[in-house]
Amino acid sequence: MEDCIFCKIIKGDIPSYKIYEDEYTYAFLDIAKDVDGHTLVVPKKHVTNILDCDEETLHHVMNTVKKISNHYTDDLGYDGVDLINANGEAAQQSVFHLHIHIIPRKKDDKVNAWPNFDGAKTEIEDMYNKLKMM
Amino acid sequence: MEDCIFCKIIKGDIPSYKIYEDEYTYAFLDIAKDVDGHTLVVPKKHVTNILDCDEETLHHVMNTVKKISNHYTDDLGYDGVDLINANGEAAQQSVFHLHIHIIPRKKDDKVNAWPNFDGAKTEIEDMYNKLKMM
Repeated sequence: MEDCIFCKIIKGDIPSYKIYEDEYTYAFLDIAKDVDGHTLVVPKKHVTNILDCDEETLHHVMNTVKKISNHYTDDLGYDGVDLINANGEAAQQSVFHLHIHIIPRKKDDKVNAWPNFDGAKTEIEDMYNKLKMM
Repeated sequence: MEDCIFCKIIKGDIPSYKIYEDEYTYAFLDIAKDVDGHTLVVPKKHVTNILDCDEETLHHVMNTVKKISNHYTDDLGYDGVDLINANGEAAQQSVFHLHIHIIPRKKDDKVNAWPNFDGAKTEIEDMYNKLKMM
């Protein structure tokens, strides 16, 4: 997509710290400098987020997420990874090309990758009655 | 796995607020009551996390994540979803059966699903040289 910054990165029109690339996906470092090793995995095909993503593209993205996560833990000495993915402006998505954040983690790294949620406002039974699909 | 709380939920030995179930996956509400609509998607096959998960199982899980996310946004009036997934104790995983958190979001819900990272400690060029796979 012409105005998409991630499409431009994939095409090489904008430079990036490329971690991995294959036929379907591209991975690079986030330049936010908010946490060490912050990696983004994106499909080469432009989709907005998982809501409009076809299953095949999603599988390619997740295969790459897994490949990089295994590389970080098996080969580079990390002890785990956190994955984060925002879908929709209301969910704090800021670039509207599907991207999965990978945060490599080490024991005692003092990073807190869990959000600071401030408590449910609705009774869980009410949420259950609203959300259940079966 | 005998001692796994999520395996017990899948089997029905522990009750749950079941949102969705198919041949390969099970989804239910998290009882942490930390944020409205907090949903967990797990594979029926016991795997620890994405690091030891086969691709096929991961695809089934993501198909269900997408199905539920589309249900929340297309059918129930949510504006987006956040996905969170911790892999490894160092990454703050607490139940060692793969689970993807879905947080349904609405405009102006005042939820902050993005972690409070406190800045990278390492130069991005150094991270790049360490992490790159190609």
